Amino acid sequence: MAYSGTPILAEDLLFKPKHSIIDQSLHSRLGATTTNGDGFGIGWYGEGAEPALFKGIEPAWNDRNLRELAGEIRTPLMFAHIRASTGTPVQRSNCHPFRHERWLWMHNGAIRVFHHTKRDLMIAVDPSLFLYIEGSTDSETLFYLALTLDLTQDPFGAVARAIGLVEKVGREHGVEYPFQGTIATSNGESVWAFRYSSEGKSRSLFFSTNVATLRQLHPEVEILQSVGEETRLVVSEPLGDLPGAWNEIPESSAGVVHPGTDEMRPFQPIAP
Amino acid sequence: MAYSGTPILAEDLLFKPKHSIIDQSLHSRLGATTTNGDGFGIGWYGEGAEPALFKGIEPAWNDRNLRELAGEIRTPLMFAHIRASTGTPVQRSNCHPFRHERWLWMHNGAIRVFHHTKRDLMIAVDPSLFLYIEGSTDSETLFYLALTLDLTQDPFGAVARAIGLVEKVGREHGVEYPFQGTIATSNGESVWAFRYSSEGKSRSLFFSTNVATLRQLHPEVEILQSVGEETRLVVSEPLGDLPGAWNEIPESSAGVVHPGTDEMRPFQPIAP
Amino acid sequence: MAYSGTPILAEDLLFKPKHSIIDQSLHSRLGATTTNGDGFGIGWYGEGAEPALFKGIEPAWNDRNLRELAGEIRTPLMFAHIRASTGTPVQRSNCHPFRHERWLWMHNGAIRVFHHTKRDLMIAVDPSLFLYIEGSTDSETLFYLALTLDLTQDPFGAVARAIGLVEKVGREHGVEYPFQGTIATSNGESVWAFRYSSEGKSRSLFFSTNVATLRQLHPEVEILQSVGEETRLVVSEPLGDLPGAWNEIPESSAGVVHPGTDEMRPFQPIAP
Amino acid sequence: MAYSGTPILAEDLLFKPKHSIIDQSLHSRLGATTTNGDGFGIGWYGEGAEPALFKGIEPAWNDRNLRELAGEIRTPLMFAHIRASTGTPVQRSNCHPFRHERWLWMHNGAIRVFHHTKRDLMIAVDPSLFLYIEGSTDSETLFYLALTLDLTQDPFGAVARAIGLVEKVGREHGVEYPFQGTIATSNGESVWAFRYSSEGKSRSLFFSTNVATLRQLHPEVEILQSVGEETRLVVSEPLGDLPGAWNEIPESSAGVVHPGTDEMRPFQPIAP
Repeated sequence: MAYSGTPILAEDLLFKPKHSIIDQSLHSRLGATTTNGDGFGIGWYGEGAEPALFKGIEPAWNDRNLRELAGEIRTPLMFAHIRASTGTPVQRSNCHPFRHERWLWMHNGAIRVFHHTKRDLMIAVDPSLFLYIEGSTDSETLFYLALTLDLTQDPFGAVARAIGLVEKVGREHGVEYPFQGTIATSNGESVWAFRYSSEGKSRSLFFSTNVATLRQLHPEVEILQSVGEETRLVVSEPLGDLPGAWNEIPESSAGVVHPGTDEMRPFQPIAP
Repeated sequence: MAYSGTPILAEDLLFKPKHSIIDQSLHSRLGATTTNGDGFGIGWYGEGAEPALFKGIEPAWNDRNLRELAGEIRTPLMFAHIRASTGTPVQRSNCHPFRHERWLWMHNGAIRVFHHTKRDLMIAVDPSLFLYIEGSTDSETLFYLALTLDLTQDPFGAVARAIGLVEKVGREHGVEYPFQGTIATSNGESVWAFRYSSEGKSRSLFFSTNVATLRQLHPEVEILQSVGEETRLVVSEPLGDLPGAWNEIPESSAGVVHPGTDEMRPFQPIAP
Repeated sequence: MAYSGTPILAEDLLFKPKHSIIDQSLHSRLGATTTNGDGFGIGWYGEGAEPALFKGIEPAWNDRNLRELAGEIRTPLMFAHIRASTGTPVQRSNCHPFRHERWLWMHNGAIRVFHHTKRDLMIAVDPSLFLYIEGSTDSETLFYLALTLDLTQDPFGAVARAIGLVEKVGREHGVEYPFQGTIATSNGESVWAFRYSSEGKSRSLFFSTNVATLRQLHPEVEILQSVGEETRLVVSEPLGDLPGAWNEIPESSAGVVHPGTDEMRPFQPIAP
Repeated sequence: MAYSGTPILAEDLLFKPKHSIIDQSLHSRLGATTTNGDGFGIGWYGEGAEPALFKGIEPAWNDRNLRELAGEIRTPLMFAHIRASTGTPVQRSNCHPFRHERWLWMHNGAIRVFHHTKRDLMIAVDPSLFLYIEGSTDSETLFYLALTLDLTQDPFGAVARAIGLVEKVGREHGVEYPFQGTIATSNGESVWAFRYSSEGKSRSLFFSTNVATLRQLHPEVEILQSVGEETRLVVSEPLGDLPGAWNEIPESSAGVVHPGTDEMRPFQPIAP
């Protein structure tokens, strides 16, 4: 889940929605696994120059610290992630979101047979960035590939090139569909989101309808009066059942949420 | 799950069965909750005078230490438990099984509104035993009540008196059905199991058919040749689908597995 | 450590001082134990009606979440505690500070042979409060005894009565010196601190000199210009070596830090 | 600590000696750091084809599971390690000993500025082994370099070549003294130990005097009667003060403990 907009208490995002991400950690309706109990993380832009991270290796639904902090963190831009491990260890350094300077990154999906392509992909990371890799996941390696391939200047292009490289290396190792997943990344001002899989059957991704439209549809929903027009949520699963509130991001698409008009466009990997 | 019989590697019990307890921690079919990710524990009789305990606060399916140890622990009598918290914190001292000297205890169920009856129940624990209570669960308090009420000499009677006291105190606090659950306890030689609830709708409990009968039913199942005739399993959910292998323990019943003929009998609480 | 004054970032208190509490967790100079690696906790008054808590069971020096959060928490009143267990388990519910509604409580010391006096002391807790006890420490029991004995209306008196009860019960169990330690408690506006031990040899406790005096003594220290005159620290060990900055609270004393003139007075337990 | 000899209960090694490794975790006398509270691990040869591992991320002195298991594990060959992190995260995959098939490996020391040489060193690991690296430590990378350079066939040579490579890469990055430390590795039959540092000032390493000699020196020490003549301990710090029991392994030396006569020899890295 990525939130961008009017500064809001984290608990309003994490705990209060009917089908919140914490509830999803126990009972996912659309995810590949029904239980996402292999760690969690949140990242948010606050006091410091870099975003802050809070991560845990126990299930999110059990973490009392998370519940406490959610009542204290007020932020205009937050990422939240619950993890179902695809094999790599459940440890803090493998929990999303990942951070590099001002950037946050999270990924819901997999690089297929990463076990075998990992070495080739890690060698492709710029040596000056390599030393910042802390964990052992495919998702973090993909982040550093995107950073190597110019994420900070050209996010759409960098992710396309990174996934293009993953597909090339994967196919060299005989993998038919090397990549699948959704990605969100931010520099603290904009949020970019991607939905793509080599086989054309990606996990779900939704964005919230703009607030002005929602207000017209649902004049009775109070919270819509108090958040600003720029407010937007990008989520793997809708957080509630409000009709008209959620729009699916189509297969092979990418978008950006930022001040001004948000944008959606087709997405294809760029082969190296 | 309680195992008693031919010494066996823990992994043969915990990881190898088709519908093992570890698998149940993610996908329970009969339990009150589908996910039991709030800690786990095993207790077994081995080298020492007292049984040994290994407990964890993360989901059992994630614990690499458990997987390692299961390949090294060989024991004739083991308890294993996966926890879905009913509100008390997820911490080691709240994980089952509980131990006092030679005795192990585990409980799958609840003392209703324990929050309110806890003080009265704890005061009823013998002062010489009170100091050994380490955690904050209803289940551990029930264990110490049973110990107070002569568990080591008269297990059937002590549990009946302990639940009788729970029902009396609960009703004084206006609780209609104060107790529900299944219990297993052992002194290292025998295993006693109980199924009871104040409302007559307890959680499921099964015991395995005796090995001689199973061999006749299933001459093709190899493992049945290698375990001794005394071997018996007591479980909340069957570990596999072998026809004739599992027998449900009836509502309001208790049984004992021990050298010689096992025994089953009706169970009713004894009011104080 | 207790801080009260100008809102400040937690990291300025927890990590930046030369001899910070995090550094003390590895290398205590005055404490009973040189290593305080058995969990930690912070409590602070922020967004909510109740103070927030963040606690961990690993050593404070290792906790990356603590480091992250310290850069985001800005508060006018914070408690921080590092624990060296006197025997009770290292688990979240045993970490200080403890909270009840608006009140925080922490204790550095011990009720002697609590193992044996625990039952008597717990029975003395008001039944309406008993159900909020979550852990198994002497310190939390003492907090609930103080709450039972009117902490919210008369802090000095309630602590005196609570320690008086501890001494009475301890002596009934043959303990010569039943209590020793320092205590800090707050309702979000004032901080009360106590130094007392039955044998008259309590652990150390210091308070910071008032800011106006410090400014005169050290015009060169910049941070003294930016904090308000009401700012005050109460600590077990001085956080630095600034001459004139720290004053030891005498044996058998108690004080209160609050808006207006702070106060110090002799302290003696009140027998029940 | 590495033990090889008569099968023994782990607690006799880990907890009973006067200056045991658990005690060393709180109060090291000879180590670089006085507190080794950043995780621990034990590895032992038991029931399975591969050695078993038990690791924890909390301080060893707090781990109740370790205490329980130590009373149940009986083994002829065990490694135990307590960690003081040199910067990499405290997580299970970074705790020693490391395992690959039948081999165990532990290291007490550091590859200097590993942060900067890591990429070059990881690329030197054989691609067929690369995928087994789970953590982010210098020590694990060194293990996989040694495996790449023929550890299983020529342990003395492989470690010499691995450290030779570390020194070459380190010097290319401007590091004067790239390596320091002691290493122990085993295939379940023999234990190889190394003491070396680029600057000639390695951490301490000791081996126990052979049992026959110790019996003559100390006919009064009972345990010496019950362990076999092949029994040998290799430790960073002596576990007790028995005169004549401990011999320091000289700077730049390596040795092997195995059935038959043990052996010690000078050690020098082999440049690639």
